[in-house]
Amino acid sequence: MTSGKAGYIIVSMKAEIVSIGTELLLGDIVNTNAAFLSQKLAELGIDVYHHSVVGDNPARISSILKTALSRSDIVITTGGLGPTVDDVTSDALKPYISKNLSHLKNSHGTAAGFFIKLPDNKFIIALPGPPRELEPMFEKNTIPFIKKISGARFIIKSRTIKITGLSEPKVNNKVKSILKLKPPVTVGIYVKLGEVRLKITVKAASEKNALKLIAPVEKDIRKRLGDYIFGVDNQTLESAAGELLAKHKKTLAIAESCTGGLIANRITDVPGSSKYFLLGAVVYANQFKQWLLDVPEQLLKRYGAVSKQTAVKMAQGIRKLANSSLGLAVTGIAGPDGGSKIKPVGLAYIALSKNNKTICKEFRFTGDRSAIKWRASQAALDLLRKNA
Amino acid sequence: MTSGKAGYIIVSMKAEIVSIGTELLLGDIVNTNAAFLSQKLAELGIDVYHHSVVGDNPARISSILKTALSRSDIVITTGGLGPTVDDVTSDALKPYISKNLSHLKNSHGTAAGFFIKLPDNKFIIALPGPPRELEPMFEKNTIPFIKKISGARFIIKSRTIKITGLSEPKVNNKVKSILKLKPPVTVGIYVKLGEVRLKITVKAASEKNALKLIAPVEKDIRKRLGDYIFGVDNQTLESAAGELLAKHKKTLAIAESCTGGLIANRITDVPGSSKYFLLGAVVYANQFKQWLLDVPEQLLKRYGAVSKQTAVKMAQGIRKLANSSLGLAVTGIAGPDGGSKIKPVGLAYIALSKNNKTICKEFRFTGDRSAIKWRASQAALDLLRKNA
Repeated sequence: MTSGKAGYIIVSMKAEIVSIGTELLLGDIVNTNAAFLSQKLAELGIDVYHHSVVGDNPARISSILKTALSRSDIVITTGGLGPTVDDVTSDALKPYISKNLSHLKNSHGTAAGFFIKLPDNKFIIALPGPPRELEPMFEKNTIPFIKKISGARFIIKSRTIKITGLSEPKVNNKVKSILKLKPPVTVGIYVKLGEVRLKITVKAASEKNALKLIAPVEKDIRKRLGDYIFGVDNQTLESAAGELLAKHKKTLAIAESCTGGLIANRITDVPGSSKYFLLGAVVYANQFKQWLLDVPEQLLKRYGAVSKQTAVKMAQGIRKLANSSLGLAVTGIAGPDGGSKIKPVGLAYIALSKNNKTICKEFRFTGDRSAIKWRASQAALDLLRKNA
Repeated sequence: MTSGKAGYIIVSMKAEIVSIGTELLLGDIVNTNAAFLSQKLAELGIDVYHHSVVGDNPARISSILKTALSRSDIVITTGGLGPTVDDVTSDALKPYISKNLSHLKNSHGTAAGFFIKLPDNKFIIALPGPPRELEPMFEKNTIPFIKKISGARFIIKSRTIKITGLSEPKVNNKVKSILKLKPPVTVGIYVKLGEVRLKITVKAASEKNALKLIAPVEKDIRKRLGDYIFGVDNQTLESAAGELLAKHKKTLAIAESCTGGLIANRITDVPGSSKYFLLGAVVYANQFKQWLLDVPEQLLKRYGAVSKQTAVKMAQGIRKLANSSLGLAVTGIAGPDGGSKIKPVGLAYIALSKNNKTICKEFRFTGDRSAIKWRASQAALDLLRKNA
């Protein structure tokens, strides 16, 4: 909302999310609504500075509403609109209800939402709690309303660059100056298990302008991080690897020990993966490393199941068994048991067999069993992607 | 904290969670920390009336802290403790830091947490943002501290009964009267993908009393739901099945088509699963159903890869290949492509081969590719559990 005020120009509206429900305060459910609404509001160019959660208690709801309206232009409440006794949002909103009230249709449930226009260009938007009711109501009925009242002068557009194989401090170090960029272009760094993300966000007058602002920053990031970048936005490591396999008409077979099927599961999460994925073998017991993958018994005895030699033979063996262009293999110790001083929990060997050579890498992953499995699957899919 | 105050006796401490991080306000991440902490605090008998989220802005953090300390005894902050420029919690907490500050060890990251004792029996506990760091720090180092300062007069204890193979409306119908129970014992119903949970919660003076109140309700639920219940609390379908396999000294091999390794991955998520899990085969291409599992080519041609006949042969074939006591097999259509009028997306056959017979069931799962994969894995693990 543009309004001159003692030398300031306030260019964007401020919204705030007030989530109502004792089940949130008991930790029985996670507040996914706040995340959903925040993301949508950011795209609309609306600033969000506060989320609050309060239980089904009229006095506390009223107090939070008062605070929220004192510091924000739009207050969005979620929950408490149903017909049960617990649902007290409507009661708490009574003092604000005037003739400037409109209902928002609920196509997935019974409780209608509503919005109220208050004096001084303040607004209350009340939405139901269940995400499957709130999300379509917000997309269909609320966004057009917000666009109208905010008279949005600009949009927010973002692009996420996804990186693996490099720790967060190392990524941070390589893009330090980029992380210091000031609006209209900012870049944030986010850490996921076995992955780092750089999110470029721009505020611009149009989609076209936004893309123009993003392009040089992305180019700069790509120059600094090169092949550590495996994808953008909704791409995953498995979809990126899959795209390359499909493009180059290669086929894949996987032999897994410590990852226990996780890599095959991720590969097959991608629709259409049956085009390139032929066979997976989860060879937990050693005898199948011999029988199925032709890992020699002597080699297993001499170097152990968790060794570079075994990983290489597994990759070659599964490739031969499936007659695929690529054979990917992982052997390691996921823990919590089975580690030793020489071969600790987290040690893993990942091998990729292709036409004329087999690559093998040693890793030492940290974390609990599930973290080690995940990190090993990340490293394996990364090796695959780089050779697909 | 017991304190006489104008005729009131305040019997429980109030805690409040202040989550700090612009990424939460942008909707880039969901506030799972608030749910985790709330659940733990409820178990400790600590009331939580407010959650707040604020960005990496010193002035707004200070303001929220002031409000939080005015209405709660314990203020727990999450996030903003790292070494990067964005991490401003430590700065905002400076005015509160006194000699009554203790550090909380971070065994999964670099940023230590800390707690501060303020005058009037108020406390600030500052925890790191990443759940992997926050959760163990809270469990190990913070709970003992909170127990000490709260001198809790009662505890909240809960027990979650986990159900699969029955839809939420059907579970609801069977336990309708139980869901209406009033304090000190209440029961809530929660839906997960392919799973329904009943959470019994009691408020009692001691652990012993709590268990006494829970027992008859659990007994009643078990009477009504019988074998649909696969476990309680932290048990998963894969851990429940694994426990039974270990107990009965049975071994397992799995052949997967549409689940693509998900079942093997879940089975191997359980520490110690190498005791009973021998081999998994992800037979995505039809030729491996023939070569590896001895599914006759004629049978595949006649009935198709997604058929009862193929599922049965797959289960028998993987059991024979692995020489295991049980052979579990899934074949189906995960979508989005590959469905037809007769064999639509979501159709799946799950078979279990044991000593003297093979069981096979037909399912029609709904949802997107990942939901179908998950529901199929639930049904397969459930069939396994019932025959382990």
